[in-house]
Amino acid sequence: MIEHTSLVRVRYAEADQMKYAHHSNYIIWFELARIELMRSVGISYADLEQKGYLLPVLEVHVTYLRPARFDDRLKILARLPKKPGAKFRIEYEVRNEEEKIICSGYSSHGFISADYKATRPPRSFMQALEPYF
Amino acid sequence: MIEHTSLVRVRYAEADQMKYAHHSNYIIWFELARIELMRSVGISYADLEQKGYLLPVLEVHVTYLRPARFDDRLKILARLPKKPGAKFRIEYEVRNEEEKIICSGYSSHGFISADYKATRPPRSFMQALEPYF
Amino acid sequence: MIEHTSLVRVRYAEADQMKYAHHSNYIIWFELARIELMRSVGISYADLEQKGYLLPVLEVHVTYLRPARFDDRLKILARLPKKPGAKFRIEYEVRNEEEKIICSGYSSHGFISADYKATRPPRSFMQALEPYF
Amino acid sequence: MIEHTSLVRVRYAEADQMKYAHHSNYIIWFELARIELMRSVGISYADLEQKGYLLPVLEVHVTYLRPARFDDRLKILARLPKKPGAKFRIEYEVRNEEEKIICSGYSSHGFISADYKATRPPRSFMQALEPYF
Repeated sequence: MIEHTSLVRVRYAEADQMKYAHHSNYIIWFELARIELMRSVGISYADLEQKGYLLPVLEVHVTYLRPARFDDRLKILARLPKKPGAKFRIEYEVRNEEEKIICSGYSSHGFISADYKATRPPRSFMQALEPYF
Repeated sequence: MIEHTSLVRVRYAEADQMKYAHHSNYIIWFELARIELMRSVGISYADLEQKGYLLPVLEVHVTYLRPARFDDRLKILARLPKKPGAKFRIEYEVRNEEEKIICSGYSSHGFISADYKATRPPRSFMQALEPYF
Repeated sequence: MIEHTSLVRVRYAEADQMKYAHHSNYIIWFELARIELMRSVGISYADLEQKGYLLPVLEVHVTYLRPARFDDRLKILARLPKKPGAKFRIEYEVRNEEEKIICSGYSSHGFISADYKATRPPRSFMQALEPYF
Repeated sequence: MIEHTSLVRVRYAEADQMKYAHHSNYIIWFELARIELMRSVGISYADLEQKGYLLPVLEVHVTYLRPARFDDRLKILARLPKKPGAKFRIEYEVRNEEEKIICSGYSSHGFISADYKATRPPRSFMQALEPYF
């Protein structure tokens, strides 16, 4: 298992007229957190793309438990629970400053090549994850 | 059951460097489509908020089947399958110009009052939906 | 001179907690309107990119005169005042449903090739504009 | 004069299919930087709004000199050059990791009250700025 926590502060542009962080932003914070999760074990998502691997989202699920508001500092925990194959799932938990879980969710992903065909994960990706599983 | 289809064209700002419409945008298109679904039966979401009712998202699920790209014209079908109570679910299907389903999903919602407490749906909302269920 | 008007309805996600359409959205509406301006004279911006031409923004200016709000229907006028060379400027005016100007602005652009070097506009682009200047 | 530098890393969702950070994001980074500029002298923009003051954008100008790309770490310098009155201007410079200026701009602002009328800045705001001018 790998876990990593990223910090974000809710931007003014991210809050809606309900005075809540608009629910679409969690999807963007999840993405940011999974990119930092990869970086924490030495995988640069930018490099993966430059080598011709893309990692589109196949599925996303979000459960909103409590609102976040403008200026709140949030902790976005991303977790890779199982060794990935061609497809894998990442789980997320968002906590506010009081350490309350305000949101949970998951996303699933599959590697594709630059010509948009399903492909196996690159060897360097699997090697970077090896020590954790 | 109520169904309504909204049309969107993928904006340049919505496409990412994978040349896909970024997956977060579907959440925004779903929202737009459910607001138009309500409008199609005479419910103005803007009016609901002015009367002190908010309708936050409790849960959202998206399955991405095929990519959309910049400039694509998409059909966003929103469907209210069952008569809503204090909570309800809306289902979505996104089709491209070839009428292929590229995405499906759902969102669930619950009414809250302007002071952020759970509340029953306003009478006018239920009356507008009455003929369809 | 070429002018074209595009219509947008302010999305829920575009309004901020001031209950104004967030000022960053006008930039995205300008972009949408200049893409439709080009389409109105037979130029597909998507095609331009596929042929290896990019058209980044060099400068943008926006003057906000009145707010727009969620659900407002706006008219985004884009105008190409002069025959473009390697660089050109597009002007914008945003009107609300009462036909009041709520925003004006301009953007300037220059063609670059797919390897990010400045380049002359493609011949097809200049030919499409020929009749208007 | 007050200056403050905020750090952002370009999010995946912020890059477009030109592989540039989409030009609309600079507006959002400017906003984030001016909120941090205020925080650096003890002004919470969130508090200002809770006290009934809004600070909409009247004008914004951006000059794009070099692109930013996904995963780049950027420094957003915000500068308040003159003691504000009812209206004021903030200037911005964005630098990349090589310390090159990639973007400059400014925004102008005016205080309004919660009922959307022009108003003088709150006393606490002026007092917080006093030592710097």
